[in-house]
Amino acid sequence: MTVTDEYLKNNERYAAGFSGPLPLPPSKHIAIVACMDARLDVYRALGIQEGEAHVIRNAGGAVSEDVIRSLTISQRLLGTTEIVLIHHTDCGMLTFTDDEFTRAIQEDTGIRPSWAPESFRDPAEDVRQSLRRIESSPFVTRTTSLRGFVFDVKSGQLDEVDRNG
Amino acid sequence: MTVTDEYLKNNERYAAGFSGPLPLPPSKHIAIVACMDARLDVYRALGIQEGEAHVIRNAGGAVSEDVIRSLTISQRLLGTTEIVLIHHTDCGMLTFTDDEFTRAIQEDTGIRPSWAPESFRDPAEDVRQSLRRIESSPFVTRTTSLRGFVFDVKSGQLDEVDRNG
Repeated sequence: MTVTDEYLKNNERYAAGFSGPLPLPPSKHIAIVACMDARLDVYRALGIQEGEAHVIRNAGGAVSEDVIRSLTISQRLLGTTEIVLIHHTDCGMLTFTDDEFTRAIQEDTGIRPSWAPESFRDPAEDVRQSLRRIESSPFVTRTTSLRGFVFDVKSGQLDEVDRNG
Repeated sequence: MTVTDEYLKNNERYAAGFSGPLPLPPSKHIAIVACMDARLDVYRALGIQEGEAHVIRNAGGAVSEDVIRSLTISQRLLGTTEIVLIHHTDCGMLTFTDDEFTRAIQEDTGIRPSWAPESFRDPAEDVRQSLRRIESSPFVTRTTSLRGFVFDVKSGQLDEVDRNG
């Protein structure tokens, strides 16, 4: 049995107790951008209930073009206005450099990816970088609140990043 | 008080009951790629526990270059091998065309985005499209299981997409 099969069994139990459907637009008008890290359950860590918030996640929580696409759709089509960014301590993105990761892929597959892996050296500094990318986007224009945090995988706590730090 | 403040208060309660840290690599060696939709709590819908799975999410659950980046890091750096894709019924991406969304942005901001919004007409067909993008990637090479599903926002159930359907 694969893990996928195990999760499908869990889903049967979930559906048995399900009460839906909820409306499509996020009821709290907020979008969360977070790292894909397995230890960060965004809903539980922030006490989010189903239907409240868009949750966008990728490796590192980097504000890539795809995150800008998602935030643009979130704001323009579905009315969100607040944005929360979450990176975290002990992130996989701290353990390599873009150069060495790209070289390893090229050596293994014969093809060098045209995208940057987006490794970083300091989560707080990378949150600031990500905040700036959102602020400089011409498409994410309906933001009323934009704040960035580092999630501590030891304590479960969100520590706010001082934008000028 | 913003919703962000409200979530920070929730996080204080979460941290008070937190027992960590867990190891960095996902203990179940699996990555989930899902839509950012507010009604889809991936952890609860699949019964995922903290530390088990990478969770990658964007508008539509589209397999963008950024998702390929995230899956490449997930597999090569952190040892995942299974992949689950989740789209869902009543998706916002069904409610517009790329042309009209792009035109509206251009009229509003004066700038036409260089990225495709990635709207689609049928969630199952788009899951098949997304599966093919992963299969054709030269970088996501360590997959032992790759399956796609449509989450029904009325029932909470995952319906598997027949790849040849």
